[in-house]
Amino acid sequence: MKLNGQEPTKSECNASLNYIADAMYVIGGKWKLRIIVSLTEGAKRFNELQRIVDGISAKVLSAELKDLELNGFIKRNIYTTTPVTVEYQLTDYSDSLQDVLQALSAWGQMHRDNIKKSMKAPATV
Amino acid sequence: MKLNGQEPTKSECNASLNYIADAMYVIGGKWKLRIIVSLTEGAKRFNELQRIVDGISAKVLSAELKDLELNGFIKRNIYTTTPVTVEYQLTDYSDSLQDVLQALSAWGQMHRDNIKKSMKAPATV
Repeated sequence: MKLNGQEPTKSECNASLNYIADAMYVIGGKWKLRIIVSLTEGAKRFNELQRIVDGISAKVLSAELKDLELNGFIKRNIYTTTPVTVEYQLTDYSDSLQDVLQALSAWGQMHRDNIKKSMKAPATV
Repeated sequence: MKLNGQEPTKSECNASLNYIADAMYVIGGKWKLRIIVSLTEGAKRFNELQRIVDGISAKVLSAELKDLELNGFIKRNIYTTTPVTVEYQLTDYSDSLQDVLQALSAWGQMHRDNIKKSMKAPATV
């Protein structure tokens, strides 16, 4: 496999390994990127988010939001309405994930089509 | 945030959300991409892999390798030496992850630099 258009040297490969480990540490896991994508349309309240991110529990969503806030991807806007309204919004920093999200989305689509094709193909010959 | 260069519509956003969820389901988690990157240099034996992928236990590595094989990313080559040699090798299909790996690697590098910078900056003003 090539990284940056040419075969990687051993140390390039190690560096790349570390960077990818870093990235997966921060945005890996089942939910984080899904929460970020859900917020691309605009700020959302907790309950809205829980409805969109199918299958996430309130406890896990709460922990993931805290993590995302800590890492600078989202901010919490508190409006002094009665009752208080809290909305979660993407920060400019989360824009830096655009290439990652596009690559993952394209790959996920390709992989899904691939699986569909292999399921339609005759099982054996 | 923009996907494909323009603001996404609601349904595009949902589709993208599903594709990303698919992708994270298959290659998410702490180890899978790291194992794949480790194999970019060439086929490796189990013990070599465990040394390169720092911190992984034999049990988890074994489970992850099975998963990766099932999803078509790697194949197991068995050589009838004495004792038998088993090597793990990337398939052509794993090349499809190139864009994802590059995007993640670039982002991880940027994020690391960013954290370093913010640690060097004066704590408060």
